[in-house]
Amino acid sequence: MKRNLVYVVGLGPGDPQFLTAQAKTALENADVLCGYTVYIDLIRSFYPQKEVHATGMTKEIDRCRWALETAQSGKTVALVCSGDAGVYGMASPILELAPNYPSVEIEVIPGLTAALSGGAVLGAPLAHDFCVVSLSDRLTPWEMIEKRLACAAMGDFCVAIYNPSSKGRPDYLQRAVRILLQNGKSEETVCGIVRNIGRERQQSEIITLRELENKQVDMFTTVYIGNKTTKNIESKMVTPRGYRTV
Amino acid sequence: MKRNLVYVVGLGPGDPQFLTAQAKTALENADVLCGYTVYIDLIRSFYPQKEVHATGMTKEIDRCRWALETAQSGKTVALVCSGDAGVYGMASPILELAPNYPSVEIEVIPGLTAALSGGAVLGAPLAHDFCVVSLSDRLTPWEMIEKRLACAAMGDFCVAIYNPSSKGRPDYLQRAVRILLQNGKSEETVCGIVRNIGRERQQSEIITLRELENKQVDMFTTVYIGNKTTKNIESKMVTPRGYRTV
Repeated sequence: MKRNLVYVVGLGPGDPQFLTAQAKTALENADVLCGYTVYIDLIRSFYPQKEVHATGMTKEIDRCRWALETAQSGKTVALVCSGDAGVYGMASPILELAPNYPSVEIEVIPGLTAALSGGAVLGAPLAHDFCVVSLSDRLTPWEMIEKRLACAAMGDFCVAIYNPSSKGRPDYLQRAVRILLQNGKSEETVCGIVRNIGRERQQSEIITLRELENKQVDMFTTVYIGNKTTKNIESKMVTPRGYRTV
Repeated sequence: MKRNLVYVVGLGPGDPQFLTAQAKTALENADVLCGYTVYIDLIRSFYPQKEVHATGMTKEIDRCRWALETAQSGKTVALVCSGDAGVYGMASPILELAPNYPSVEIEVIPGLTAALSGGAVLGAPLAHDFCVVSLSDRLTPWEMIEKRLACAAMGDFCVAIYNPSSKGRPDYLQRAVRILLQNGKSEETVCGIVRNIGRERQQSEIITLRELENKQVDMFTTVYIGNKTTKNIESKMVTPRGYRTV
């Protein structure tokens, strides 16, 4: 008997080479692909026969409800996310709504979040303990984001910063860098930025935290802050796996 | 002309369904597979014709040198890691050694680190800002690990704990939980544990931080600590994507 099923699929950066075999199988098994227009556009050409349901950026809850209703009616749905299905992804809101649709099963399929895919471009920036922090204050008060950045700096964590900038908040990365500097990160900390990870016109650069303070980045960029031991080795950002040498 | 090339390949949890297409291609292109015995055993049956070089757990630097020397002699090497190539992986030590082998190119191929693959098993535990912290004090002083745990708790981060236990340090998870409790995490914090992620005999459980304090786990386990808003929804661990409702 056919199950009423929603796959929540992490696509990784977008190019099919970053899909896991499990994610590819889920997309193939689905009757309909549902997601934010930009992500649907990344994959629809590989499945030209599939039904798609694409909606705009802030319509996450509508998409979750649509996916659950469509699965309830008997179709298998793949709800797609860029990066991982969980990290700032759709697995969380759909699992919150799922108890209203008791016949529907949710299967979460992980994918490469930008911290990992962009990290590979830079070298090994997150080889030791790290944090992931989003600078988007759409759902989180800025004071909470500031506190997290301060704690990340005090703990000398490596940090991957998501959503470092947008039209409405062009100076958030600068504000974040100042908080890191005020809480123990040195100006010489090795940092990296990667734009358009795994896509055409991918760009990356290794700079210091002082240089990062006045760097303009856009919403397609992920930013990496090293810890005290992170090095720039022949233009690769490399964090040793510990503080002692083996 | 053939390049002198080492791929550093993140395998994810081990089962081929978690390999990305890029990782699969790298394994296929390699002349020789090199890695820790347990990880080589996970993949050698899929490439029965390939030369393999497998060594024991603490031989990371020897493996890196062997991979670089072998690539220098003209073979393409895939140096494999479980999880991601970067996160506590082999990309870091090999990039540190690489300047001694100027003819050899290193290509880092990301993979699903346990935070993501185990997170998908539990639901969406890391859907908001999170930290990854290893409790292994082989290369990092325990005082540093304590400080990181305290900062993670003060910032109300979700936390994925790697290497929570081993024969030589059976009580480290208990010590870690106490530090989290002393620094602001409540006893009712929703936590999850996943053992043997993506492998036979995968097990998972959702418990409170108070219950976690006296839980015995082994080295094949990854532990997840929620933030203030994390919920147990029908036995899924779900962290909302922000503190405000959409």
